[in-house]
Amino acid sequence: MAVMQDKPRLGLLFGDSTGIGPEIAAKVLAEGGYREHVRLVAIGDKRVLEQGVRDAGVELRWTEVAEGGEIDWDSLEVPLIDLGNADPAALGRGKMSPESGKITGETLAHAIGMAQAGQLDAITFAPLNKAAMFAGGWRFPDEHKMFAHLLKHEGYFSEMNVLDGQWMSRVTSHVSLREALDLIDARAITDAVELVNRMMKRAGIAQPRIAVAALNPHAGENGLFGRDEIELIRPTVERIAAGGIACTGPYPADTVYIRAFAGEFDSVVAMYHDQGQIATKLKGFNRGVTVTAGLDVVFTTPAHGTAFDIVGKGVASPGALQTAIELASRLATVRLAA
Amino acid sequence: MAVMQDKPRLGLLFGDSTGIGPEIAAKVLAEGGYREHVRLVAIGDKRVLEQGVRDAGVELRWTEVAEGGEIDWDSLEVPLIDLGNADPAALGRGKMSPESGKITGETLAHAIGMAQAGQLDAITFAPLNKAAMFAGGWRFPDEHKMFAHLLKHEGYFSEMNVLDGQWMSRVTSHVSLREALDLIDARAITDAVELVNRMMKRAGIAQPRIAVAALNPHAGENGLFGRDEIELIRPTVERIAAGGIACTGPYPADTVYIRAFAGEFDSVVAMYHDQGQIATKLKGFNRGVTVTAGLDVVFTTPAHGTAFDIVGKGVASPGALQTAIELASRLATVRLAA
Repeated sequence: MAVMQDKPRLGLLFGDSTGIGPEIAAKVLAEGGYREHVRLVAIGDKRVLEQGVRDAGVELRWTEVAEGGEIDWDSLEVPLIDLGNADPAALGRGKMSPESGKITGETLAHAIGMAQAGQLDAITFAPLNKAAMFAGGWRFPDEHKMFAHLLKHEGYFSEMNVLDGQWMSRVTSHVSLREALDLIDARAITDAVELVNRMMKRAGIAQPRIAVAALNPHAGENGLFGRDEIELIRPTVERIAAGGIACTGPYPADTVYIRAFAGEFDSVVAMYHDQGQIATKLKGFNRGVTVTAGLDVVFTTPAHGTAFDIVGKGVASPGALQTAIELASRLATVRLAA
Repeated sequence: MAVMQDKPRLGLLFGDSTGIGPEIAAKVLAEGGYREHVRLVAIGDKRVLEQGVRDAGVELRWTEVAEGGEIDWDSLEVPLIDLGNADPAALGRGKMSPESGKITGETLAHAIGMAQAGQLDAITFAPLNKAAMFAGGWRFPDEHKMFAHLLKHEGYFSEMNVLDGQWMSRVTSHVSLREALDLIDARAITDAVELVNRMMKRAGIAQPRIAVAALNPHAGENGLFGRDEIELIRPTVERIAAGGIACTGPYPADTVYIRAFAGEFDSVVAMYHDQGQIATKLKGFNRGVTVTAGLDVVFTTPAHGTAFDIVGKGVASPGALQTAIELASRLATVRLAA
């Protein structure tokens, strides 16, 4: 086990306080197993954490710390940076709140600022509510694009869905299907395959086996239903493979996920959003973790949402949040060592 | 139980003789339960049926009958129209044969001619091999388009996948994704919903609950990722619903199948091939039946393929072929009564 000072520094955010985020964060903090992997600092409003502790029915001790100040990592108390920006009593629970979405975004932006200042190596956030953030003024198609904007990132980055060591990624994401078709080119496919390969290696998979999905039905049926596979995808995959990445394809999209889930591949790179999401949601990837990959800061979050139907009942499972923290620590650790 | 003369007349074809078709056909014929539903006549080469009987390890008695001739429906012997066109010893087994694909197509065309001549009410065929048929000269994107061509059909028709009373259909099919986008309009969506509604009613579902899938990620996220849902799909669905069909949507494609499989809908109408196929193949619809709907003749076939890996081993399950025959009989019966 690494000594405490060598462990990556991770910011844990409670997500949208109207959802189950504070409850599952309190459960993870009380359980304490994360201490093996990371130096974790909680970031958010003290009153939100208090609500989470009550909902979770756990015992938790924390110490308020100043941003950038010294933290006693040998203490068993959770260090908390209290932003004092969210009063859960005023925000309500179990339903979408634009005001809460605005605050969720502000807290994320604050944590990103800390990472930029060198105070954090990775960020894990409990579930947020995309609609609340948008209504609250964070007008991005998704939080990943917001992170990229705040980090002034240029070039490719992507959301990835991770479950049981399998990584599902995609070439295009939150754009119309027509726009996705226009965005798929050799550069975009190469970026997507190279990025998921890099992330999986960081996560400890020595030689990831990456399948690239076709765009057209039956992978184009030898050109009968589209020539993208012949003219674009296959030559691109072969070029990437020649560079040493174990990628193959294009495979018909309606069977490639079945083969991956059966263990033939560690990753499928989809051409567009629903291609991957139909398969991974049916397979229960909501139990897994969403990673924002390709930015200077690693972000992880449970793939599940705010689960408004079970808020305040004490029954929400902290498993995916726990996995999100472990994965962020692995990705950040190797990054530090690089 | 209806008297024999009121039952629909069904042609059963053995499919591609290089695959498991003859074996599962022999099993279904030997089991004989189909006699409750249909007046079945087997159509194909006697030697192919003999091979199927050997593979299946069953006892089967048949009588050769002349096309259009009288058939003794009280006899327990299977009436067979021997086309004498396929010598299984020359065609090989367990691998794709263009010659066998050519013959498979000829046999289908022959049965279609019989239906056009008023001798058959429906056709069920054991698995064929699309690549073999194409290589054998039947140059259609799929067999459904071949049937439509031979029947001189104009207008909409569609392949549907049926399992456990759920019917999965689609607006566009075997075309490139880009072409599919250009083909999706109010007429095409309406045709698809109306046809699946009609077929389900024929099959005995009183008021089918039909979900229409969205085209873009998150159903366009209120126009952020495409306006097709706002401008085209939602108004079309509302117009169809106003006409008395229980259809709703558009629903995000990455959750609508989960909801349907959980029992909320009897049918999902996909916008394009892979949207439906990714979901239904993952769910095991290969155990189900494929229906060609919207033509003058009803066609059904097992959704699974020729299963070259288990040819000749006697282990192939006849379940889906049996269900295909039952479904064809239900669809044809009601059609006769109409």
